[in-house]
Amino acid sequence: MPTFFEKLCYMVRRCIFYVLSIGPMPNHIAFIMDGNRRYANKRSLERGTGHRAGFSALISILRYCYEMGVKYVTIYAFSIDNFRRKPEEVQSTMDLMKEKIDELLKEQSFVNEYEVRLNFWGNHNLLNDPLRLSVEKAMRSTCHNTGPVLSVCVAYTSTDEIAHAIEMSCHEKRDLMKELHACGCKNDFFEEFDMQSVISVADFERHLYTSGCPDPDIVIRTSGETRLSNFLLLQSSFSHLQNPTPLWPDFSFSHLVWAILKYQRGHPYLQERSRRSKKME
Amino acid sequence: MPTFFEKLCYMVRRCIFYVLSIGPMPNHIAFIMDGNRRYANKRSLERGTGHRAGFSALISILRYCYEMGVKYVTIYAFSIDNFRRKPEEVQSTMDLMKEKIDELLKEQSFVNEYEVRLNFWGNHNLLNDPLRLSVEKAMRSTCHNTGPVLSVCVAYTSTDEIAHAIEMSCHEKRDLMKELHACGCKNDFFEEFDMQSVISVADFERHLYTSGCPDPDIVIRTSGETRLSNFLLLQSSFSHLQNPTPLWPDFSFSHLVWAILKYQRGHPYLQERSRRSKKME
Repeated sequence: MPTFFEKLCYMVRRCIFYVLSIGPMPNHIAFIMDGNRRYANKRSLERGTGHRAGFSALISILRYCYEMGVKYVTIYAFSIDNFRRKPEEVQSTMDLMKEKIDELLKEQSFVNEYEVRLNFWGNHNLLNDPLRLSVEKAMRSTCHNTGPVLSVCVAYTSTDEIAHAIEMSCHEKRDLMKELHACGCKNDFFEEFDMQSVISVADFERHLYTSGCPDPDIVIRTSGETRLSNFLLLQSSFSHLQNPTPLWPDFSFSHLVWAILKYQRGHPYLQERSRRSKKME
Repeated sequence: MPTFFEKLCYMVRRCIFYVLSIGPMPNHIAFIMDGNRRYANKRSLERGTGHRAGFSALISILRYCYEMGVKYVTIYAFSIDNFRRKPEEVQSTMDLMKEKIDELLKEQSFVNEYEVRLNFWGNHNLLNDPLRLSVEKAMRSTCHNTGPVLSVCVAYTSTDEIAHAIEMSCHEKRDLMKELHACGCKNDFFEEFDMQSVISVADFERHLYTSGCPDPDIVIRTSGETRLSNFLLLQSSFSHLQNPTPLWPDFSFSHLVWAILKYQRGHPYLQERSRRSKKME
């Protein structure tokens, strides 16, 4: 049962979201959750503690996003490049991810509360068996949920996503060519080959992990870092890129509101309106 | 002949660059030259005037970059999306580009002074004939230059670059398969097909316009806009993204120096050093 204080906070948030929603609201926010390890180092805590604090921050931020009607949230949980870290650190991060995914699937979790659909984007073959099984179970058991969508990039890089999409498109074309050959149209095979063998942008895009999901309106990387680090490169083409200074575990409600306000200020719709009103003055 | 004042400015710049070069220096800077039209609007000038002022700013910035030893500069001159602007505006921008490219090839231009190699990245079939001919001439006549490299993205988007690279890779594979078929290895054709038909990342990258050019260390978009707008998406994965507020024609020497300082402050080499020295304290 929520306490009186929690109810009050919820009401205040609803008011703030109501005011915000007068402007254009993002449909999809992507987060590069940077700064967990620095958070632990700064406080001389054990390294894993930073990631645990980061997970708590994530749950709060997800709740705020869903409360304000953001339909898609995507997070960069673990890059393929992160596998280069010390083996014991990689292992403990995988263990933590597994533990947290299992927690999310419990009945009282916010996944059930909001009917969240979980996606995991990345090369799952790189994950250890327990984590891969948890990931598959989470996708399977939430695939019919009709609420907001949480996409977790794990064992992911954009370069790998592109390589994967090209490979899948090639396999698709190869199967098509084999079928054509088997069909007996052997005389025109190379004529067909010429026409059919080129992979179109639509073929390629259909095989991206992100296929079917709109591009993010805002990409937020915490800890002041301005690099995208191989995260949703193709999808961030027209996203509002933001790099607020707090470390991820310190990223709070007020930072999220500020991010929305910055997005609204830079939104083409508002810029166009302000241009028009200046012309009318 | 340079005046005394110009010589003095040059000496001051050399001193500043010398101090800067104690830190890590960028090898490649990419610019999204945003704000030419707003510059003209703000001053109630004709629209073309903004682009002319932008070109002057570009020449100065290129000179500073080459003086400080930056080997590669890439600029976003004209996106494929810009073809949606009013036809007369597209036409006048093309005319201006042609005029300026022709100017660059004259004997006294900075292209000859610094032995600059000119690249033009994009879909040249979308350009009108005079501009396309100028572009081709400029590439041809500077291809043996050994100085810095200026790459101009014209009729360019990253999406189009990717589509082009996939198409070229497909054609390459198709030709290879045809050769295999013609060679008489008909029995194992589909075995070979299975092995050879998948496009690797290396195949794909070889066909990007940017192939052979290092990724940009810094991507600067002027006028405070934070979007990448389909510019070098694949290549900006680890670039330091900056969005200074001045409009492009106002972007000056001091803004460039500030951009280098920001890059140096965020450089992994320096961050690692500061982390180590903190540990030693």
